[in-house]
Amino acid sequence: MELSAIYDLIQEDLDKVEDRLRSLSQVDFPHLSELLDYSLKSNGKRIRPVLTLLSGKFYDYNLDYLLPMATAVEVMHTATLVHDDAIDNSLVRRGSPTVYKLWGKEKAVLLGDYLFAEAGALTATTQNLRVIKLFADTLKTISRGELNQAFYAFNLEQGHQQYIQRVSKKTAALFSMATESGAALSQAPEESIQILIEYGHNLGIAFQIVDDILDFIGTEEELGKPVGSDLTQGTLTLPALLLLEYYPEDNPVRKFFSHRDELDNIKLAIELVRNSPIIEECYQVASDYCAKACRNLKLLPDNANCQSLINLADYVVNRKR
Amino acid sequence: MELSAIYDLIQEDLDKVEDRLRSLSQVDFPHLSELLDYSLKSNGKRIRPVLTLLSGKFYDYNLDYLLPMATAVEVMHTATLVHDDAIDNSLVRRGSPTVYKLWGKEKAVLLGDYLFAEAGALTATTQNLRVIKLFADTLKTISRGELNQAFYAFNLEQGHQQYIQRVSKKTAALFSMATESGAALSQAPEESIQILIEYGHNLGIAFQIVDDILDFIGTEEELGKPVGSDLTQGTLTLPALLLLEYYPEDNPVRKFFSHRDELDNIKLAIELVRNSPIIEECYQVASDYCAKACRNLKLLPDNANCQSLINLADYVVNRKR
Repeated sequence: MELSAIYDLIQEDLDKVEDRLRSLSQVDFPHLSELLDYSLKSNGKRIRPVLTLLSGKFYDYNLDYLLPMATAVEVMHTATLVHDDAIDNSLVRRGSPTVYKLWGKEKAVLLGDYLFAEAGALTATTQNLRVIKLFADTLKTISRGELNQAFYAFNLEQGHQQYIQRVSKKTAALFSMATESGAALSQAPEESIQILIEYGHNLGIAFQIVDDILDFIGTEEELGKPVGSDLTQGTLTLPALLLLEYYPEDNPVRKFFSHRDELDNIKLAIELVRNSPIIEECYQVASDYCAKACRNLKLLPDNANCQSLINLADYVVNRKR
Repeated sequence: MELSAIYDLIQEDLDKVEDRLRSLSQVDFPHLSELLDYSLKSNGKRIRPVLTLLSGKFYDYNLDYLLPMATAVEVMHTATLVHDDAIDNSLVRRGSPTVYKLWGKEKAVLLGDYLFAEAGALTATTQNLRVIKLFADTLKTISRGELNQAFYAFNLEQGHQQYIQRVSKKTAALFSMATESGAALSQAPEESIQILIEYGHNLGIAFQIVDDILDFIGTEEELGKPVGSDLTQGTLTLPALLLLEYYPEDNPVRKFFSHRDELDNIKLAIELVRNSPIIEECYQVASDYCAKACRNLKLLPDNANCQSLINLADYVVNRKR
């Protein structure tokens, strides 16, 4: 199913989120305006704000709160991407040069800080203390996840559990913030909020696993960045962890981590993963998380909206980019 | 007057802020714990949390709100320093190696993000929407000030007005956030809050001007970092701006900005500034801002506390580090 069909129920309001994102770059400082325009322009899938809108559609769908929150969620996501690229020295994202590549480290770090603050300011306009606290806690969690990844780069001493924990922090925390805030801002009862948190959390894990799969099996054109970026950065993702289990001794990942100039080992690792059941196994894990995400949705009211969330989970596993 | 004497009225509560800062590093992730411990340890002057405490002492001095807020202000300040050092590739601060130097760019950026989030979480515990909004807006303002500095590095086309505007954003905004939050959290009437905002804002400008003076006249030991760092980074501060006015043509700053390998010009600029009335002029500007800071304090209740703020303004101009 195409995203446009899944987004059907909230497309009009998602357009309003786009308008708000565009309006954020109207500041009286042309250099900053240009940076904001470039980083917030519409070339992502906008899944996170969609989660906020859909999660807000089960009870009191109040756009006065949901629009700034959905915007905040996307701005926060953008901030993490801008900082990630500055940290990883990444030159391309979504097929375009990164802020880091075009403006350098200094401006990328400061733009990220500005975007975090903007996301916080947007969240504050909801005047909802639960959601405001959630925002700050989520940024703490994401930073912890990223720090875990940084401290364990090129370290073979980590397993599935640490991988899932890291993914829960660095990716799923923002997904569940998106759903929890949507639910809380629409006055959903606590049981419903918890169901939507569970959905966001598990969907986020599935999303990241698929991202990590695509880094092995995608093309540079589909990914909008070089294939094998994770391994190049020293990040052990699920496919790489499984490859290490399949070939415990003579393993190209092991070799690359001890000799980082031997880039041929990355190509070899990709080749081995592609020609093994590893990809299928990873997809199975992602599907399991999607099933877990959706298992309690039926307890929520409004079936049309539920179906959008189920379709979105389906999309997350089957997407190519 | 020594800082300890000025802090006398709130020293006991400042110690509680220190305890809270220490407790922030108790997280179940040893690498992060070490980073927090290192970056938050007590080697700064803690002027900003003192401002929050003193500003909260005119009306309802409620530590349930003031302690987390004072802690938040210091954590936010620390976050900006950690990012500044990562951006400027600074190796030493306050006489110790920076987080950037010891752990590298990646961890410094992520630690800064974590600290911003922690500051936000602490602010949220006050449950005061004005203060929460102020926090997010202040971080936006600081980032704008820093971006202005970054975009105008090595650019001679800037004058006094731009300098004061930048300093207002990158430094004074946090000072006035410290005073405004203290006042607002102690239920001060709006006129009193405005007087304390005015104090914080002008004190912050004076503080930065003196910082910029010390970068020319201090010793490396006093500064805890190399002398002339601002010029090396291409930042035009008030002494450099005045030097450009004194010697419009044959000027070492002008020369260095076009030939950044000619580091002798930095030494020459420092020498020229030291042997000119420029330093005196700069101190006069700083003193004027301090006078402006204090001019309406007499309209506040409680003279003992007022005197501390006046003494602090005095200290800010006369400090050597």
